[in-house]
Amino acid sequence: MAALDQIRVVLVSPIYAGNVGAVCRAMKNMGLRDLAIAAPVGPLDYMAARTIACHADDVLDGRREFPTLSEAVADCGLVAGATGRAGLYREHARTPREWAPRLLAAAADARVALVFGPEDNGLSTRDLAICTQIVKIPVAPAYPSINLAQAVMICCYELYVTAGLFAPPAEKTVEAASSMRETMFAKWRAALLAIGFMEEDKADHMMLGLRRILSRGTLTQKDVQILLGMAAQTLWCAGELRRVRSGAAGGKSDPPDA
Amino acid sequence: MAALDQIRVVLVSPIYAGNVGAVCRAMKNMGLRDLAIAAPVGPLDYMAARTIACHADDVLDGRREFPTLSEAVADCGLVAGATGRAGLYREHARTPREWAPRLLAAAADARVALVFGPEDNGLSTRDLAICTQIVKIPVAPAYPSINLAQAVMICCYELYVTAGLFAPPAEKTVEAASSMRETMFAKWRAALLAIGFMEEDKADHMMLGLRRILSRGTLTQKDVQILLGMAAQTLWCAGELRRVRSGAAGGKSDPPDA
Repeated sequence: MAALDQIRVVLVSPIYAGNVGAVCRAMKNMGLRDLAIAAPVGPLDYMAARTIACHADDVLDGRREFPTLSEAVADCGLVAGATGRAGLYREHARTPREWAPRLLAAAADARVALVFGPEDNGLSTRDLAICTQIVKIPVAPAYPSINLAQAVMICCYELYVTAGLFAPPAEKTVEAASSMRETMFAKWRAALLAIGFMEEDKADHMMLGLRRILSRGTLTQKDVQILLGMAAQTLWCAGELRRVRSGAAGGKSDPPDA
Repeated sequence: MAALDQIRVVLVSPIYAGNVGAVCRAMKNMGLRDLAIAAPVGPLDYMAARTIACHADDVLDGRREFPTLSEAVADCGLVAGATGRAGLYREHARTPREWAPRLLAAAADARVALVFGPEDNGLSTRDLAICTQIVKIPVAPAYPSINLAQAVMICCYELYVTAGLFAPPAEKTVEAASSMRETMFAKWRAALLAIGFMEEDKADHMMLGLRRILSRGTLTQKDVQILLGMAAQTLWCAGELRRVRSGAAGGKSDPPDA
C-alpha cells in the first residue's frame, strides 16, 4: 500500500464540486488518498462535494489547495499529466496501463503526481510543460471526452490493479476429482435409464452429451454432490414408480441416501 | 466495433437519474451503445440524466425499459452480473479484465449482457441467478463501494481496451540514429569547452554525464535537431565573445548554421 500512498492526484481548477467529490470516492475505492487542488476557481462548494464523496469524506477533508500547479507538485518527482487533446509534444503520451508500473516504481522512491485539467478544456500547454510524462486514456473516437472523475477512476484503477493488492475471490470448494465425477455420471446413467429417458443402446451416446454440458467449467466437490443427489433421487423415484405399478404391498420406501 | 455493438449494459432499478446519464456517457466513451433499464423504480428524470449524459444523449434516447431483468436479457447468451457483495455462489466471480476477452468472444456469436444492480444494494441473489457469470471489480477493502457509473466505466473500459480498437498515439518523428546523436554530442563537447564549462581533461567525464541525461528516453530526430541547434548557437556565442575580446575589427559575424 506504501506506493499508492506516495501518489498524489492533482486537480487543476476543477469547475464542479460534484466532480471533486466523485474523485475522492474513486481515489479511496482504489486505495489512494493524497488529493491536491491547484489554482482553485473559487471556494469549494463543500456540501455538494461531500454528498458525492460518500464515505470518502476523509479524502475530501484531507485535500490541500495550492495557488498554482507548480506549487502543488513541488515535492514530486515524476509528474504525469492526463490529456485527451492532441497537439505539439502530446504525441509522446502513453496509456494508463502502460504508465502504471512505472508510476508505482517511481513512487517507491519519491512522491509522484497524477495531474488532471479542468472539465472544459483539460490541461493547458503551460501546465503540461510542468509534467514530465503524458497520459492518454483509450477512448472511442466518436466521443472521446471523459468525465473528470471517470478519468481519475481509470488511472487509479490501473494503479490499484498493477499494485497487485487485490486478492481475486477464490473458489471456496475445490475441484472434484475424476473418481467423484465418474461416480456421479454412473448414477445419472442408471437414473436416466430407469426413468426411460434413454435406452441402453443409446445410453453411452447420451451420456457423452451430458458429460460435455457438465464439463464446460470447473465442477467443484459441492457441485458434484448436488448432481449426485439429483441423480440418486431420480433413481429412487423411478424405483418407487415401478414398485407401485407392480402392485407391491406395503407403504412408501425410504428415499435414497446419496 | 461489431462485438461492442452486441454488448448490452443493463441497469436494474437505478435510483439516480444522474447515474443513468453518467452511464450513457461512459458507454459512449468506450464504444458501447445498447442500454437497457430493468424494473425501473419510476419514470426517469430525463433532464437530470440528459445533463450528465452530455454528448451521449443518443445512448440515453436509445435506451429500452423492461419490467424485469429476465425480459431485459431474454435475447442474450452470456449474461454477466457485477457484484461487490460476497456470499453464496458469488465466490466464482472474476475481474473485468479476466472476463473481457470471453465477453468479446461470446459477443461475436450472440448478444451479451453486462448487468448492474441498484446503487444501494446491488444485484439481488434472485437477479444474480439469471446471470451466467459474475464480475467483481478490484477495489480497496477500506472502501469497496463503487459508484454505479464508475463500475460501468471500468467494465466498459476493459472491454474497449481488450477489443484493441485504440491506436496509441505514435511518435510523430522517428528515433535519431546513432550517427546523428554523435554529431550532436560532438557539437556539445566543443561548445561546453568553448564557453569554459569544462576543461579538456575533464571533458570526457562530463560528456558521459550529459549522455546519461539525454539517453533516458527515446531521442527523436527532432529532439536531436533542437539539441544540435542549441550547441551550435552556444559555440557561436563563445566564438563571438572571443572575437570581440581580442578586439577584432569588423561587425558581427553570422550565426551558425546547425
